[in-house]
Amino acid sequence: MTRQRTDDLGGQVVPGRRAVLELLQAGRRGVRSISVTAGRDPAPILDDIRERAAAAGIPVRHRDPDALREEAGVEAAQGVVARADAIPSAPLGPLLDDAHAFLVALDGVTDPRNLGAVLRSAVAAGATGALVPRHRSALLSPAAVKAAAGAVEHLPIALVGGVPAALDQASRAGVWSVGLDAAGDRDVYDVPIADRPLVLVLGAEGSGLARLVRERCEVVVRVPMPGPMESLNVAAAAAVACFEVARQRAG
Amino acid sequence: MTRQRTDDLGGQVVPGRRAVLELLQAGRRGVRSISVTAGRDPAPILDDIRERAAAAGIPVRHRDPDALREEAGVEAAQGVVARADAIPSAPLGPLLDDAHAFLVALDGVTDPRNLGAVLRSAVAAGATGALVPRHRSALLSPAAVKAAAGAVEHLPIALVGGVPAALDQASRAGVWSVGLDAAGDRDVYDVPIADRPLVLVLGAEGSGLARLVRERCEVVVRVPMPGPMESLNVAAAAAVACFEVARQRAG
Repeated sequence: MTRQRTDDLGGQVVPGRRAVLELLQAGRRGVRSISVTAGRDPAPILDDIRERAAAAGIPVRHRDPDALREEAGVEAAQGVVARADAIPSAPLGPLLDDAHAFLVALDGVTDPRNLGAVLRSAVAAGATGALVPRHRSALLSPAAVKAAAGAVEHLPIALVGGVPAALDQASRAGVWSVGLDAAGDRDVYDVPIADRPLVLVLGAEGSGLARLVRERCEVVVRVPMPGPMESLNVAAAAAVACFEVARQRAG
Repeated sequence: MTRQRTDDLGGQVVPGRRAVLELLQAGRRGVRSISVTAGRDPAPILDDIRERAAAAGIPVRHRDPDALREEAGVEAAQGVVARADAIPSAPLGPLLDDAHAFLVALDGVTDPRNLGAVLRSAVAAGATGALVPRHRSALLSPAAVKAAAGAVEHLPIALVGGVPAALDQASRAGVWSVGLDAAGDRDVYDVPIADRPLVLVLGAEGSGLARLVRERCEVVVRVPMPGPMESLNVAAAAAVACFEVARQRAG
């Protein structure tokens, strides 16, 4: 009996207009079918999706809203869901060898919408790849893929045995590990992160960076909060940190 | 027959650990009851909630997970939900008269999790108030209150007849309107927003700022995106912009 290798990230169900359009535009994976439902509002983006599907010979099925919702696996699929090949894991080595590496490691972000939102912000800010631990099953759930709004079509994502070991490997490759945590030692604005390859390390919602991960970070930064909150949502903190990297690199 | 005035924001159902703890800590509104379910993991924050409830004479009921989920109105209530008085609308005048006003206007953010996330980031970044249009019914739904993670206990929120008219009033009060849109004219980093009272104006997910709102903004800024995405999630964009205001004000 051979055991199947499951070295992919899932992501076969792609709900949402922007996610489906980016799937078709990027053209990195096979698309098997697209389901649409008649919407109340005419949307140019849906016309664009239909035209691209027709040009690529992808079957487009019309379904009633309940059937579409069930196929999409999320409440608000915006009237469209695609079925595509799974997204393969990217090899970690080349991601670390990039002289301009800007990676994001997600160690314990469990909420699919947060996961997708982090990937979306990371891609928008110019990230070159992401790292996620392999034990996370069904990583790219429909809700995560929808929240990512197409980011998963662009960003190479490496499944790693564990984030601590991956950060060791990053260190050996000259990639700097920058933890992000509400209890960080320095403000994210005060750390020069523009001029070197780096991996931004995010911990779990609520509990933050795990000890073994934190110990491997060269520096742990925080987003300084003048207002009366104890913490930020992980996707909000990630957005601020990713765009601080982008701001410094552009400056 | 008198028509009831509904000049409140809702928010009576408060799901989630952080949201309930902040409700009790802030002490700004009456708390009627708290329901908890026996969790698998011991959580100091739940003990804290129980102790504060006992000290304040608030009844705490134990419920099974299904009953709690139904009461909470969200999937992941983290084992606790409170019932509290509705949150009243704040008057707009005093918010505009603050010499250090840092307001956030939400014109068309419809997803409750995005709404809550924006409020959470705004409070963390030091915002002094928020504006939302009155026609939005059930503004602070359970999902929004949970995502806000206690922010609604701190931030005065003014219901306004319409955002364009409120921005006119802001202008007369010397408060600068700064729109945020992917199609903005200038980078958010290039606009000096530290030294003056301002209202950051957010549009709808997908469609961005409405024309009548955009016309009233003194400047429309964008978060520059080096990566291959068309837009950011509204909560991510709001986080970046709010913390850019905070960064400039601290600098």
